[in-house]
Amino acid sequence: MIKRFIYVLTLSFLICSCQGDSDTQSDSNSSLVTNITELTNAIKEAKPGTTIVLKNGVWKDIQVEFRGKGTKESPITIKPETVGKVTIEGESDLKFGGEFLIVEGLHFKNGFSPSNAVIDFKISNKDAADEIANNCKVTNCVIEDFNKPKRDNSDLWVNFWGRHNELSNCYIAGKTNRGPTVRVNISGIESINNYHQIVNNHFGPRPVKGGPSGETIQLGDSYTSMSPSHTMVANNLFEECNGEVEIISSKTNFNEFKNNVFYKSEGSLVTRHGNYVTIDGNYFIGDGVNENYGGIRIINTGHWVVNNYFYGLKGKSFRSPLAVMNGIPKSPLNRYNQVTDVVVAYNTYVNCSSPWQFGVGTNIAQADVLPKSEIRSARAIRTTVANNIIYNEKGLESIVVENDKADGVMFKNNIVDNQGVKFNDFNGGITEASLTLKKVSDNIMLPTGIPSNVEAYNGFDFNTIENDLFGTSRKDTKSIGAVIGVDVSNPNILDKSKYGTTWFSNEVEAKDPITHTVTKAEDLQTKINEATTGDIIALAEGIYAVNKSLVITKTLTIQSSGNAKAQLVFSGEANMPLFSLESKGKLTVNNLVLKGNASNYAFASLKENMSNHFGLTVSNTEISDFGYVLKAYKESFAERITFENTSIANCENGIELSEETNDKGDYNTEYLTINTCNFNNVKANVIDYYRGGYDESTIGGNLLITNSTFTNCGAKEKNKTLLNHTGIVNVNITKNTFKNNKVQFVSILWGAKNNVASENKITNSGQLKTEENLKMKLMY
Amino acid sequence: MIKRFIYVLTLSFLICSCQGDSDTQSDSNSSLVTNITELTNAIKEAKPGTTIVLKNGVWKDIQVEFRGKGTKESPITIKPETVGKVTIEGESDLKFGGEFLIVEGLHFKNGFSPSNAVIDFKISNKDAADEIANNCKVTNCVIEDFNKPKRDNSDLWVNFWGRHNELSNCYIAGKTNRGPTVRVNISGIESINNYHQIVNNHFGPRPVKGGPSGETIQLGDSYTSMSPSHTMVANNLFEECNGEVEIISSKTNFNEFKNNVFYKSEGSLVTRHGNYVTIDGNYFIGDGVNENYGGIRIINTGHWVVNNYFYGLKGKSFRSPLAVMNGIPKSPLNRYNQVTDVVVAYNTYVNCSSPWQFGVGTNIAQADVLPKSEIRSARAIRTTVANNIIYNEKGLESIVVENDKADGVMFKNNIVDNQGVKFNDFNGGITEASLTLKKVSDNIMLPTGIPSNVEAYNGFDFNTIENDLFGTSRKDTKSIGAVIGVDVSNPNILDKSKYGTTWFSNEVEAKDPITHTVTKAEDLQTKINEATTGDIIALAEGIYAVNKSLVITKTLTIQSSGNAKAQLVFSGEANMPLFSLESKGKLTVNNLVLKGNASNYAFASLKENMSNHFGLTVSNTEISDFGYVLKAYKESFAERITFENTSIANCENGIELSEETNDKGDYNTEYLTINTCNFNNVKANVIDYYRGGYDESTIGGNLLITNSTFTNCGAKEKNKTLLNHTGIVNVNITKNTFKNNKVQFVSILWGAKNNVASENKITNSGQLKTEENLKMKLMY
Repeated sequence: MIKRFIYVLTLSFLICSCQGDSDTQSDSNSSLVTNITELTNAIKEAKPGTTIVLKNGVWKDIQVEFRGKGTKESPITIKPETVGKVTIEGESDLKFGGEFLIVEGLHFKNGFSPSNAVIDFKISNKDAADEIANNCKVTNCVIEDFNKPKRDNSDLWVNFWGRHNELSNCYIAGKTNRGPTVRVNISGIESINNYHQIVNNHFGPRPVKGGPSGETIQLGDSYTSMSPSHTMVANNLFEECNGEVEIISSKTNFNEFKNNVFYKSEGSLVTRHGNYVTIDGNYFIGDGVNENYGGIRIINTGHWVVNNYFYGLKGKSFRSPLAVMNGIPKSPLNRYNQVTDVVVAYNTYVNCSSPWQFGVGTNIAQADVLPKSEIRSARAIRTTVANNIIYNEKGLESIVVENDKADGVMFKNNIVDNQGVKFNDFNGGITEASLTLKKVSDNIMLPTGIPSNVEAYNGFDFNTIENDLFGTSRKDTKSIGAVIGVDVSNPNILDKSKYGTTWFSNEVEAKDPITHTVTKAEDLQTKINEATTGDIIALAEGIYAVNKSLVITKTLTIQSSGNAKAQLVFSGEANMPLFSLESKGKLTVNNLVLKGNASNYAFASLKENMSNHFGLTVSNTEISDFGYVLKAYKESFAERITFENTSIANCENGIELSEETNDKGDYNTEYLTINTCNFNNVKANVIDYYRGGYDESTIGGNLLITNSTFTNCGAKEKNKTLLNHTGIVNVNITKNTFKNNKVQFVSILWGAKNNVASENKITNSGQLKTEENLKMKLMY
Repeated sequence: MIKRFIYVLTLSFLICSCQGDSDTQSDSNSSLVTNITELTNAIKEAKPGTTIVLKNGVWKDIQVEFRGKGTKESPITIKPETVGKVTIEGESDLKFGGEFLIVEGLHFKNGFSPSNAVIDFKISNKDAADEIANNCKVTNCVIEDFNKPKRDNSDLWVNFWGRHNELSNCYIAGKTNRGPTVRVNISGIESINNYHQIVNNHFGPRPVKGGPSGETIQLGDSYTSMSPSHTMVANNLFEECNGEVEIISSKTNFNEFKNNVFYKSEGSLVTRHGNYVTIDGNYFIGDGVNENYGGIRIINTGHWVVNNYFYGLKGKSFRSPLAVMNGIPKSPLNRYNQVTDVVVAYNTYVNCSSPWQFGVGTNIAQADVLPKSEIRSARAIRTTVANNIIYNEKGLESIVVENDKADGVMFKNNIVDNQGVKFNDFNGGITEASLTLKKVSDNIMLPTGIPSNVEAYNGFDFNTIENDLFGTSRKDTKSIGAVIGVDVSNPNILDKSKYGTTWFSNEVEAKDPITHTVTKAEDLQTKINEATTGDIIALAEGIYAVNKSLVITKTLTIQSSGNAKAQLVFSGEANMPLFSLESKGKLTVNNLVLKGNASNYAFASLKENMSNHFGLTVSNTEISDFGYVLKAYKESFAERITFENTSIANCENGIELSEETNDKGDYNTEYLTINTCNFNNVKANVIDYYRGGYDESTIGGNLLITNSTFTNCGAKEKNKTLLNHTGIVNVNITKNTFKNNKVQFVSILWGAKNNVASENKITNSGQLKTEENLKMKLMY
C-alpha cells in the first residue's frame, strides 16, 4: 500500500527564493520558453551564462538535444519556471553534448524514453566534441516510474559518457524494465578517467525485476573492465533498491564509493569487474529479518573496503555483509577473476548473521557438468582483513564462513564479541572480547569496550586510511573498527532531506482504506474505478453475473462483505480474464466464489504494456471451471503471487508463469506461494513456473507449496510432471498430499540449488525426483 | 667472430675523478671492505650517508643481502674501490631490502645466480618493510653472460619489486637461459604504482633462445595484468636483443616507453597484456634485409603509439613495424584481449616492407582444431591511425595489410609516398604524396615535401602529444610525422657512450684470424687450445688418427690446409664425439674427411652445462661410419647448424635435434640448413628436428633442405618418416632427390604454418604429405 504525500521543505523554499526563479527571468541572459520549438531555438542561441526557463506545465513527447558550450564560471542552464512544476511526460528524453551545461528541477513522469536512455550524456556517435558531454550536470530532478512498456526493452535512465559529468540531488525510483537505472559508459577514450560525480541522490525503491539487469548503478561492463574510470559515488541514499542481486555493479577501475547509505535494499555493492575500487565509510542497514539485504561482494584485485558499518544484515553467501568470491583460474573476460590484494580494514559489523564469507560461489562440485571456464576454484590470495570489529548479540558458529579455504587471507587484529561461542581465530587474527553496544541512533549501535592492549595493525599503506566513518582523523589513534570512540553525534543517515531534491519527497502519509460496498454486478467496475489505491470493494451476498473483465490498475481488495461468500459467475469470452491485472494492479481476492465457463480465465495480466508490476493474493476462495486460473503473459511481473485456503477445481489449466522462455534469467514472479489449497481436476499447467539460463548470480524465483492437496490433476500435462518449476532457484514442497494424479513425476527438483521437498504424501501420482545438476543454456 | 676491446672513456675518467673513489674512502662515512663477512657487517652498521667500498678484485660466491634505510639526501651506497675493478663471480647474487640504497660500478661475470635472480629488489616474502626495496638503485654496473648452466633453469638478472627503484646506466648482455633478463613484478600491493625507472641502459646482445621466455624486459605477467604499474623504460639502447619474438613484453598498465633505440633486434616491443601504455619517440632501426627485426605489436586497450621512427624494417606479420593483433572474444586472462581505443599518431616509417598490419594472428580458419577460447576473431575497434608518414623507396602492394578487416580503425591524414603504386586509401585516410628523403644520419632519413595543405588531424586528446621525436614542441605546428621539419641535428642514437656504464664498452676491434697449422694428430687439441676465437686450424694432407674428443669452446675453423682433404679417423668409444661442442664452441669444418667406428659420433654438444650456445657449419666434407653425425643434447642450443656440399654415408643416425620434449616451445637450433648434401645409407634420424607445444608467438625453428639427395636412408626409422620436423614453424624442402628410401613418408608438412615443399624428385620413397593442422599440446 503506497500513499504519497508530496511536501516542499521550508528549506527548499528558502533555497528557491535565494536562487530566485523570477530574478533569473528578469536577467538579460534568461529566456522563458513555452514549447519544444522555442526551447530548441533557445538552446541554439544560448551563450555562456544563458538560463533557459521552461514554462510551468506538462511538456509532453519532447526530445531535447542540449548542445552547447558554457564555461566553468558561466554555464548554460535549463530550469523550470518553478521547481517541480515542469513535468516531462510521454515519449521524452534529454541528451547532452558539449561543456558546462546544467539541467535542474525537472520532473520526469508518466512516460518513457523513446531512445535507449531518459538522460544521456551523449547525443550521437559523430566524431565531434559537441556530441558528447563534459562537465555537464543534472541536478535537483526527479525521474519516477519512467518505464518502457515492455520489460525486456532495455534502457537506462541516466547514461553517462564523457568526463566530469554529474548527477546530484536527484530522486530516482520505480524502474521495472530491463537495464540499470544509471550507467557509466567508458568505452572510447573520450570517457575514461571520467571522474563523474554521482552524489547526494536519493535512489528510491526499484522493485525486484525478476531476472538480471536490474542494477541501480552499473559502472562500465566487462568489455571495458580494464579501463580507468575514477567515478565517485558518494552520499547517496539507496532505499529499497531491490532490482536484482547487485545494487551497484562496479565493472571498471579506481571507482570510489563513499558515505552512501544502503537501506533495506535487497542486493549488494559488487566489484563485479575491474579493480582498485575504494569502498569507504558506507552504511549497510538491515532489519534483522530480511535475508536479501546484502553488503559488499568482492571479485577481482586491489579493492579497499574500509570504515564501513553493517547493521542487522541477515544475508548469507552471495548476500553476506562481506562476500569474497572464488574466481575462475585464467578467467574469461566476462566471468570471475580471482580476488587478490584486497584490504578489508576498520569495518564494524553489528548483529549480522554471517559477516565474512570466503570462497563464495565455489562450484568445484559441478566440474562434470560445467565447462572448465565456468569453474570457480581460485581462492582469494594476498588479502588482508584487519582492525575490524564484530559484535553478535547471539554468538555465531563461524565468524568466517569458508565456502572454500580462506588460506590466502591474512587476519590481523580483529576483535569479536561472539557471546562466548567458540570460533576459528585464524592464528590469532580474530580475538574474542566482551563488548557492549552504545546506541547512537536506531540503526547505529557502536561496540565499546575494546581491550586497551588492542591496537590497529599497521598494514602496507594503511596510513592512506586517513579518517574514520565519521571523518575523524585516524592520525593520532590506533583505534580499530569503523568509528574512533563512541562519543559521536547521530549522523541522521536516514533523514531523507539530506538526499535527493529540494522539492520532492517519497515520504508517505498513512491513510485508512475506504470500503466501497457493491450489491449488483453492473456497479462493480464503477466502484473499482472510484476506489483509490489501498481501498476495499465489499460484495454483498449473492450472485454477480459478469461478462466483461474487471480491470485492476491499483492496489485493491475485493471480498465478500459478510461471512457468506459472494459469487462471481463469469461468462466472458474464451481467453478473457475475469480480473484483468494491469500495470500497478495489485489485487487481493478474499472469501469469494469465482466460476468461469471452462474457456475464460480467472486472472490474467495484460499481454503487453505491463510497464509496472501486478500482484495477486487469493484467499478463502473457491475457483472453478476456468480455462486458466492465472495466466501471466510474457514480460509481466508480480513480486508476489499467493493462493491460500483456496480451492481450485475443474480447470483446464492452473497457475501459468512460464512465458519467460528467452533463457536470459527472467521469470514472472519473485514469490509464488501456495498454502493450504486444494487442487482438483486441474488438467494441465497445474503449477508452471519457469526461469531459463545458467546465471549463478540470479538467485530467485521462490516457490513454496505447502499443506496443499492435489487430486486428479495433470491428466493433460504433456511433460508428465505435475509441478513444473524448471530453473527456479528456491523451491520448497512440503506437507502436501498428492493423490491419483496421472503423471510420471510430481516434481523434478534441482539438487545443486535450493530445491527441497519433505513430508509429502504421494499416492498413485508418480515420483518426486531430484536431479543434482540441471543442464542449462549458458547466458554468457 | 667476436673480439672485445674494453676501453675506458676519457669522460668516465673525468667522472670518476670528480666522484673521487679515494675521496670517498677518506670520508668518515666510508669503509673499505675486503670480504663478505666485512661487507655483511658494514651493511648492518650502515647509516644514512654511509658508503661501503669493495676492495678491487674478484668477489666469488657471495650472496649479498643489502638491507638498510638510507634517506633521499643521504642514501647508503655500495661501490667498488675502482669502477669496473670489482667483479662478482661464481654463484653470487645481490638482494635489496629497505630504502634509498645504491649499488654502483660492479661487474657480474663468470658465474650465475644460485637463486632466482642475480639482482633482486626483494630479500624475502616476510611481512616487513626492510625485506622489500623502495627508492633503491643499481647503476653503472655490468652483468655479462651470467647464465645458469642449464637452459631450462629459469632466472631473472634484474628482478624488480617494491616502488621507485631504478636500473640505470648498466650494460647487460648474453643471457641464454630461460627467463626474461629484467622483470618488473607487481603482484602484491607493495609493488603496484611503482614508477620504477629503467633508463640509460645498454642492453647488449641476447642471443636467440630457441623457444619462449627469452624477453629482454618483461613487465608483470598475465596474472597481474590488471594492476597499475607506471614503469618508465627510457633512453635505453637495445642491441641485438634476439632472445625471442618479444624484446619487451609489457603486461601491466600505464607503462611508458620513451626514446629507446631498438637496433638490429630480432623482436618487437609488445603490449602483451595490460593497457594504456605510451610508446613515444622510440627508434626501431633495421638493416633493410633481416626479416626478424620487428617493431611494435599491439594487443589490448588504450595504447598510444606516437612520435616513433621506423627505418629499414623488413619484418612482416607478428614482426611488422606496427602489428595490431586480433583478440579472442571474452579472452581468458592469459590469452589475447581485443585491441580497442588505440591511437597510432605522428609516426614515420621509412623503407619498411609492411608498415601496418591489422588482424595479425587471426586463426579463424583453425576453428575446427582449436578450442573456442583460442580463436582470435575479434578485430581492433575504436582505433585511430593519424598523422603518420610512410616513405617507400619501392612501392608496396598494400600500405595496410589486412589479415582480418581493419574496419574498426579510423585512418586520418596519413601521407604515403608509395612511388605511384596504388593502394587502398581507407576513405581518404591515407593520401599519396611525392616525398624526398633528407639524410640526418645513416639510420635517420626524414621524408620531406609534405603538401602544404596537409594538416594534422586533431583527434581526441591529441593535444597531450606535446612534443615530437626530438622533443620539439608541437604546440604551434600542424605538422605530421615523427619529426617537425627536417632541419634537425643528428641525434647520434647509436653512439654507445650515451648508454650503459661510464667504464665498459662492447665495441669490438677488428682482428684478422690467425692460421695454426697442424701436421700430426697429437698436436690437434693443443693447437685448438692455443687458438683464440676466430682463428683457423689448418690440417696438412694426411690421415689423423684421433681417439679422444676434440674439445671446442670458442669460434674456430678446422680445415685442410690445401685442396686435398685431410682425413680424421676417429676410434673413440661408443657415444663419444670426435668434436665435442661445448658452451661457446662454434665450429666450422671445411674440406675434411671424417670417419668413425659406427658407434661413436662426429659432433655432439655436452650433455649438460651448455650455458652458452654452440654452432656448427660443415662444408665440403665427407662423413661416414658414425653412430650419429650430430647429437644435440637437451638444453643445448645452436643459432645455426649448416651442412653444405657434404656427403654423409653409412651412419646409424643422422642429424639429431629432438630432445626438447618438454613441449614448452623449446628447440635445439634456430636454423638448420642442409644444402647440396648427399645422404646415403643413414639408417635412422636422418633429420630429426623437434619443437613441441602450441604457441602462436614462437615463430621458429627454420629448416631448409635443398639440392640434396637421400638414398637408401631411413631403413630403421621407427615412425617411417625420413625427414622429421614436428612442430618446426618454417620448413622448406626443395629441389631434392629421394630415391629408394624405405619409409612411408618423406616428410609430413604442417600446412597451417610456413611448411612448404617443391620440385622434389621422389622415387620409391613413400610420399610427401601436408597436414593442415597439427594437434599440439596447449602450452597455456
